Amino acid sequence: MNRILFNAEELDADGRATFGGVRAEHVLTVLHGEVGQTLKTGVVNGPIGTGVIERIDGEMVTVKCVHDREAPPPWIDLILAPPRPRAMKRLLPQLAAMGVGRIVLVGAAKVEKAFWGAQLLKEAIYRPLLVDGLMQAGTTALPTIQIERAFGRWLDGGRFEEDFAGQQVRIVAHPDALSTKHQALSTCRPVLAIGPEGGWTDDEVARLEAHGFRRMSLGPRILRTDTATIALLARLMPEADAFSNTTKET
Amino acid sequence: MNRILFNAEELDADGRATFGGVRAEHVLTVLHGEVGQTLKTGVVNGPIGTGVIERIDGEMVTVKCVHDREAPPPWIDLILAPPRPRAMKRLLPQLAAMGVGRIVLVGAAKVEKAFWGAQLLKEAIYRPLLVDGLMQAGTTALPTIQIERAFGRWLDGGRFEEDFAGQQVRIVAHPDALSTKHQALSTCRPVLAIGPEGGWTDDEVARLEAHGFRRMSLGPRILRTDTATIALLARLMPEADAFSNTTKET
Repeated sequence: MNRILFNAEELDADGRATFGGVRAEHVLTVLHGEVGQTLKTGVVNGPIGTGVIERIDGEMVTVKCVHDREAPPPWIDLILAPPRPRAMKRLLPQLAAMGVGRIVLVGAAKVEKAFWGAQLLKEAIYRPLLVDGLMQAGTTALPTIQIERAFGRWLDGGRFEEDFAGQQVRIVAHPDALSTKHQALSTCRPVLAIGPEGGWTDDEVARLEAHGFRRMSLGPRILRTDTATIALLARLMPEADAFSNTTKET
Repeated sequence: MNRILFNAEELDADGRATFGGVRAEHVLTVLHGEVGQTLKTGVVNGPIGTGVIERIDGEMVTVKCVHDREAPPPWIDLILAPPRPRAMKRLLPQLAAMGVGRIVLVGAAKVEKAFWGAQLLKEAIYRPLLVDGLMQAGTTALPTIQIERAFGRWLDGGRFEEDFAGQQVRIVAHPDALSTKHQALSTCRPVLAIGPEGGWTDDEVARLEAHGFRRMSLGPRILRTDTATIALLARLMPEADAFSNTTKET
């Protein structure tokens, strides 16, 4: 945890929060928290800043926070044909940490049907994983998860174009791409589509291309979905984003 | 597994191999292997090609291979202050898949001492993990693992310069870097140094810089060591490498 995050409702009008659980445990055992110590803090989907420990009561910690800075905004959206729940569970915090805004989970042909029954799809299960990723990264923008099991209907029925109106930089991960270079990134937020473990079908790729998606590969090596996702995000990450928030932390 | 790999000694003079275990299970259950079917095959640290299934005997499979093409060569080396064994175990196959050549595990100040007793450091344990990564990627170049627990002595005592003579593109992952861009990659193989979970100490960074390492960051988000490693490799991956083995394009 590089920043302790609170839900807005955990903070009182003076910016004070009292908390236990894994966050308090981290403060007490990893950060060796003591009264008077300053922590990096923030609000989920809100600003960042610092909090001073006011009180430690057994396993409960009280901090008083000043959150006066913007957190780095998300810079990319993802259309993801989900890998197996175990891989997905590892991937989710990493997606949040890397600055993904929207995650649309789609039922591509080769997604295992069992996936759609996974516990992981419940907000109560996936939200803490995403918040873990944000606390690791020190950011606050919580990715949204949207489930579109009927992928084709969503893509071609008008709802995809509605959901991503104005986001014309569209990239589909594909081993046969002509380039490992991405399109010149403009000011608009790119949308990256990543297929299932077995890959997109030819039909799926054709339909994505009909919506303006261009192929991008990672070269001759075939990477696991989770590795490929991180690698593609890293290659697409614009320089500009990297510097949107570089003023060194106090 | 996108390519079944054999150790050279598993193949007879005619390129025939008989095998069981997880590889055979993959051939029979995932690839629905039948006599006459052609598989992608290769030799660890050797060429790639195809193998035709000649015989299936219970859980044993016999293939006859022709390996007549070069596999993509490794393109980067890594100096890695290892994360915890569990994270390391997940990372190793990914490093092999991404084309890392040498992995030097160094005892930076903040590496947990317990790591050096891990089972994972035994070749019998880590080799299969690396080969898994190669089979996923469809390549054959097995990364080497070198252990330098006395990091400072290795770095400053002349052995580092000996080990990486001629490799002058040296990059150290550091959140305070002025740039998320890497140096222009020349024809020489870059060396990337990645610190422990807690980061390099200032002294360690200064000593790496004295050996020509330049800082590179991934922007304002702090990533977990394993995520950061994949992301940095992906950002450094040259276009040229991506096409060293592609026959598809115009």
